[in-house]
Amino acid sequence: MNLLFLGTSAGVPTKTRNVSGIALRESKGKGWYLIDCGEGTQHQVLHTKLSFHSLKAILITHVHGDHCYGLPGILASAAMGGRTAPLTLMAPKGIQTWLEATCEVTQLSLPFVLEFICSDELPSVEFENMAVETFALSHRVPCYAYAFTERNVEAALDVDTLDRQGIPRGPLWGQLKQGVDVTFEGKQLRSQDYLLFKHAPRKVVIAGDNDRPELLAQACAGAQVLVHEATYTEAMAEKAGEVGHSYGKQVAAFAQAIKLPNLVLTHFSPRYPLISHTSPSIEDIRTEAQSVYSGALYLARDFVEYSLDKAGQLTEVSSE
Amino acid sequence: MNLLFLGTSAGVPTKTRNVSGIALRESKGKGWYLIDCGEGTQHQVLHTKLSFHSLKAILITHVHGDHCYGLPGILASAAMGGRTAPLTLMAPKGIQTWLEATCEVTQLSLPFVLEFICSDELPSVEFENMAVETFALSHRVPCYAYAFTERNVEAALDVDTLDRQGIPRGPLWGQLKQGVDVTFEGKQLRSQDYLLFKHAPRKVVIAGDNDRPELLAQACAGAQVLVHEATYTEAMAEKAGEVGHSYGKQVAAFAQAIKLPNLVLTHFSPRYPLISHTSPSIEDIRTEAQSVYSGALYLARDFVEYSLDKAGQLTEVSSE
Repeated sequence: MNLLFLGTSAGVPTKTRNVSGIALRESKGKGWYLIDCGEGTQHQVLHTKLSFHSLKAILITHVHGDHCYGLPGILASAAMGGRTAPLTLMAPKGIQTWLEATCEVTQLSLPFVLEFICSDELPSVEFENMAVETFALSHRVPCYAYAFTERNVEAALDVDTLDRQGIPRGPLWGQLKQGVDVTFEGKQLRSQDYLLFKHAPRKVVIAGDNDRPELLAQACAGAQVLVHEATYTEAMAEKAGEVGHSYGKQVAAFAQAIKLPNLVLTHFSPRYPLISHTSPSIEDIRTEAQSVYSGALYLARDFVEYSLDKAGQLTEVSSE
Repeated sequence: MNLLFLGTSAGVPTKTRNVSGIALRESKGKGWYLIDCGEGTQHQVLHTKLSFHSLKAILITHVHGDHCYGLPGILASAAMGGRTAPLTLMAPKGIQTWLEATCEVTQLSLPFVLEFICSDELPSVEFENMAVETFALSHRVPCYAYAFTERNVEAALDVDTLDRQGIPRGPLWGQLKQGVDVTFEGKQLRSQDYLLFKHAPRKVVIAGDNDRPELLAQACAGAQVLVHEATYTEAMAEKAGEVGHSYGKQVAAFAQAIKLPNLVLTHFSPRYPLISHTSPSIEDIRTEAQSVYSGALYLARDFVEYSLDKAGQLTEVSSE
């Protein structure tokens, strides 16, 4: 599973950082999920290898413009690019209302079905290779985190158990290996009872804007990675609370408390340049977070991709 | 008066061309007008010297997404950048409806007044340094051209006439020079009768999508420059007509017929690369247009700026 950041700025774009957008790529094939879609996300996609044809779903965390104003344009471009496959859109109810108004006013007619799933109902959804769960956060408007857990983890047949139970080698074994439950001598055999999974399923939690990281404790159970906003440094803690945002150290302290192995911070206020000779810069957010967190800490940059391997290790794989 | 192209692609952005957006800069000061605002226009502005504080008005030619999807984001960013001065928005009625829906759903509250002027009523509007007229075009949806004529053209006092009529040198002359009408010995004196304008007022017509360039004959009276879409080459003439667009040669033939001195083509289909070793490319649009037009022909590129001097000559002034 790979995370490719398309935008890491909060509120407004800067010359080097776009507003929110994250591509989560499946470990097999070219399928990907887009989490948030600020204005200009489609432009960022043009500079990657991602194709709108292999986009499985768009998930919006909340209705603020820097997380959704790119939605009409990306749908229009997918349409003009010839997409006809249905597309899932998970988002707060308001987004559906807004898209309908947008399509009507701007005469946008999509040649594919948009399957809307309302995030306000905290849905769990199973895609072919990915299970998605929804969790509520704390922000100025209803806001959500999405937990992505890979499905169909590679597994070997538990030959010892099959032999011990006298299940004959052949088509039955093949079906069980494929994850299919079968019937043998009138008994129902569950595939998962005869499989030895090669690694724990990979799980990544991607949160929207949020001023209470501790709300993510349940979402992060079994997760190797949390992606969370860190709009400010600690000096802005009061302001952060007022506008429903977090500061880096606050998120890092939560990640430390739940022993999360990998933390990726993003959604930095434009007031923080990437590197600055005069504080504050993004390096200050890093320093503050590192002071309370002993796991692997990453501060996202536009076009940087992170890979989560089967052992649950996150590494930076490329930078365009 | 300067024209700075922020986007020259039709329908969808490409790696090198954004969707529609043109900045028209006043000859004096920093004031500018934005004509169309496709997605990512605010990102383009970041790479210029334009400031949202000196933006006088946004004018939208029609409701199609590649001409307006950047509007919510640019307004939000102007707001976050501290703009408080009222902003004029000239656009078809649907845009107002859509913006209201957008502000409501995405909780966007602007700290400045948006003064909406409905283009469907073909308004004439006078800004401090610019007069704007609206003309109807032919497209799949109501679509408009905006004609910009500079006001307050530099002028000298017609001293001979003043002396001949016995109007005494002093404060009266000063007022007439400033464009103020005055009363002298019970008689109303009109400023414009005592001024010698140093050049014809500059006039630029910027058209939206349109399949009948000849509709612009009246708009172009007295204009030195027409900016018009040239989505296709002549080989696509039939398709162009079907979708309400023009091809380059068609626009150029019209410009030739009305003896227009400067023609700028833009809004090129993404199928035409800038330079291509294999046709068709934008160079084919140029060649076709040049074959029927003897004026100064320009094919716009993103970030290229054109300056219209007092003599009515248009020249390329910079390329970022």
